[in-house]
Amino acid sequence: MNTTARQMTLIAFMQAQNCTNYAGSWRHPSSMTDYLSPEYYQRIARTLEEGKFDMAFFDDRLAMPDIYGNSHRETVAQGVRAIKLEPTSVLMAMAMATSRLGLGATYSTTYYEPFHVARLYATLDLMTKGRVAWNVVTSMNDSEAANFGHSEHLEHDLRYDRADEFMEVVMGHWDTWQDGAIVSDKSTGRFADPDKVSRLDHQGRFFKSRGPLSVPRSQQGHPVILQAGQSGRGLAFASRWAELVFAKYPTLENGKKQYKALKDGIASAGRDPASVRIAPELKIIVAETESLAREKRDLIASLSRPIDGLTMIGETLNIDFSGRPYDEPFTDAELAAVSWQSLRDKVVQVSGKKNPSVRDFVEASGRGTLNDGPCFVGTGAQVADQMQEWFESACDGFVLSATEVPGTYEDIVRLVVPELQKRGLFRKDYAGATLRENLGIARPRAGDWRRVG
Amino acid sequence: MNTTARQMTLIAFMQAQNCTNYAGSWRHPSSMTDYLSPEYYQRIARTLEEGKFDMAFFDDRLAMPDIYGNSHRETVAQGVRAIKLEPTSVLMAMAMATSRLGLGATYSTTYYEPFHVARLYATLDLMTKGRVAWNVVTSMNDSEAANFGHSEHLEHDLRYDRADEFMEVVMGHWDTWQDGAIVSDKSTGRFADPDKVSRLDHQGRFFKSRGPLSVPRSQQGHPVILQAGQSGRGLAFASRWAELVFAKYPTLENGKKQYKALKDGIASAGRDPASVRIAPELKIIVAETESLAREKRDLIASLSRPIDGLTMIGETLNIDFSGRPYDEPFTDAELAAVSWQSLRDKVVQVSGKKNPSVRDFVEASGRGTLNDGPCFVGTGAQVADQMQEWFESACDGFVLSATEVPGTYEDIVRLVVPELQKRGLFRKDYAGATLRENLGIARPRAGDWRRVG
Repeated sequence: MNTTARQMTLIAFMQAQNCTNYAGSWRHPSSMTDYLSPEYYQRIARTLEEGKFDMAFFDDRLAMPDIYGNSHRETVAQGVRAIKLEPTSVLMAMAMATSRLGLGATYSTTYYEPFHVARLYATLDLMTKGRVAWNVVTSMNDSEAANFGHSEHLEHDLRYDRADEFMEVVMGHWDTWQDGAIVSDKSTGRFADPDKVSRLDHQGRFFKSRGPLSVPRSQQGHPVILQAGQSGRGLAFASRWAELVFAKYPTLENGKKQYKALKDGIASAGRDPASVRIAPELKIIVAETESLAREKRDLIASLSRPIDGLTMIGETLNIDFSGRPYDEPFTDAELAAVSWQSLRDKVVQVSGKKNPSVRDFVEASGRGTLNDGPCFVGTGAQVADQMQEWFESACDGFVLSATEVPGTYEDIVRLVVPELQKRGLFRKDYAGATLRENLGIARPRAGDWRRVG
Repeated sequence: MNTTARQMTLIAFMQAQNCTNYAGSWRHPSSMTDYLSPEYYQRIARTLEEGKFDMAFFDDRLAMPDIYGNSHRETVAQGVRAIKLEPTSVLMAMAMATSRLGLGATYSTTYYEPFHVARLYATLDLMTKGRVAWNVVTSMNDSEAANFGHSEHLEHDLRYDRADEFMEVVMGHWDTWQDGAIVSDKSTGRFADPDKVSRLDHQGRFFKSRGPLSVPRSQQGHPVILQAGQSGRGLAFASRWAELVFAKYPTLENGKKQYKALKDGIASAGRDPASVRIAPELKIIVAETESLAREKRDLIASLSRPIDGLTMIGETLNIDFSGRPYDEPFTDAELAAVSWQSLRDKVVQVSGKKNPSVRDFVEASGRGTLNDGPCFVGTGAQVADQMQEWFESACDGFVLSATEVPGTYEDIVRLVVPELQKRGLFRKDYAGATLRENLGIARPRAGDWRRVG
């Protein structure tokens, strides 16, 4: 693989909440506590832009975690992601404090209307001058359904069928204005060319939407599509739509397989595999010396509590573990109903049991602990060594989740980024003004996506 | 009426689009054309904050105007509000460039879910440190319905029944966190008091939503409720919910009646009439001399085109005027189906005809021209004289719509605001940090609204 030309993509995995992806982070002595203010997010944004990160993006959930014990009391008392702000408002706070950093936010295809999502993200893309990505998800648990007036969440494959059509409507609306439609001639009173603005007139199985959208195309054409589908139907979805894939590699060996499967899937969908960036989630704990890094890791590990994992597994799998004997195997039917299928598959694989128990889910998933996915610990050079190995064999970059904020990102920018730059693996300055320019992804013309596959 | 204590409320009526409320504004030689960038909105925000305005707020429509001739071609060609950005993204751009100016945005109760609106506005209120207002509307035409997958819009009173329940859900979610719930004690690991966070468990005619919301209360408790209901059912809605009423007074005499009817309605709903601010829409064209102001007015008036009014009346009334003889009276059945009932009533009243024609609608409504509502023209002192007369007899302040931007707001801040300040009618500095403090509206405690009526 030619590493001189390839540049790593670096993405910060943000949370608009009281803790990072690592729930215990709020208990860290250095974690800032002003997460309900714009300054908290702007501070991180400026650090990431100094470090020339491609992007920061927010995940989302539309309910407080309360599957465990059918109550939010433990979630609230112990701060296990008890707070979740609306992500695009927070994105705009970061956008107005930066000029190059890309900014992504998650919106669900399950509980919003495609016209709304198309208009919202098109507007965000204009207000940031072409720096926005939309992380496309399907919502996964009954708590979210209950907030939106439904009694239970949609079944896995049906959610993806709906999501596919949702994408067609959103992409279709983004195409209702062609580039160069606006004339804006005050002297003749001709504002725009009506031949370059059209209705969509979508009528499908799940949606009807007419258009035209009331927002013209942005500097980068339209927002970058970010997606994390891993299991069967989700992988097909990502292969069709994703421009940037947020992956989870439990190990490098597994990552190599996933990387190949995704690139193959993208080719099968009729798209250029080189046009899609694949970045696995990674935690980094870095310090000036190896022994300092290990001590930092031990402090961070000590912040985790059992409730963190139990709460977060219950939420993602949509199963209440609270009343169940810890070692009782799940039945085949129970396993089939699990919402997050790729996590279930990982537990089956790691535990080596066809019917794992609660203990197996907690231990094999590592949820709520530092064992939930890869964690590189060491000096800047040691961490860069591992990143380089992964980058040269299994990915196009990394989605970096934090164990404390803003500390994790400050450490990475001061100790890891310069090391990657020295090796020629990461840019020394931004390539352009838009997210697409910095990711190295082509600016789409209206209708390009229809000509694929 | 005691005018020494009373201070005028000044609100800028913003549009996240290619023109102001006055469609011809984009054809004005001095109108800035960067309405797709944050700078356009931030420039206006800074001017308004220099002028100590209480607030700027955005209206919204969820479709391009295309009822007229069942086509968007004329709308696009002539720039009659062809663009409409998502308003909360633009609000955030203005918020990050200011620290005191209040900021409002419209969201419809017809096409969004109350959980989403509750979370979005609660987040906006935190990101602005308590400066946000929500303008509550019901959506009114078939173009909007078509974008959201429905074949026609909801009937008037049913829209308001739904809106009432929507408000109960949103206000209920805002109450799911009590003040002081967050403890954030890192040493004990106690994050928040679970006795101060509760589910909503709403089950009504239109909505089910469980909660708790994942966003705590803001500096001002929750966003200010802005509303513009004028006709029967809408007036009852405003009387129950509004903290700030955006009104339309065709004349001062009519305004006096509306002001009394609203204050009476608020008292009948069991609320303190003094706690609600009522502000009619007003256009101001002001210059250093009276003759300069008249010349400016003539230039602005010359920018209007017939298509402006035809397009915008069709949109708000949900009627296509394009194929209809200009002088043919509407039947009783046609008039009953009109979407914007208060505009219909105004046309009947002003024209003196029980069954007005298209001509009557265009001329009596004044849509698309400077005759659409009051327009004060003159020097700073002349304009202030008229504002003072209205303020002392029929309103608590004004919603100022622009005929060009940023010119209108720059003129008002330089020529009218100092005159109002000199007379003791308007503040010289902000009273506080939150919108409620500046409006002089009390900070609500969780559940206050349930104890009313």
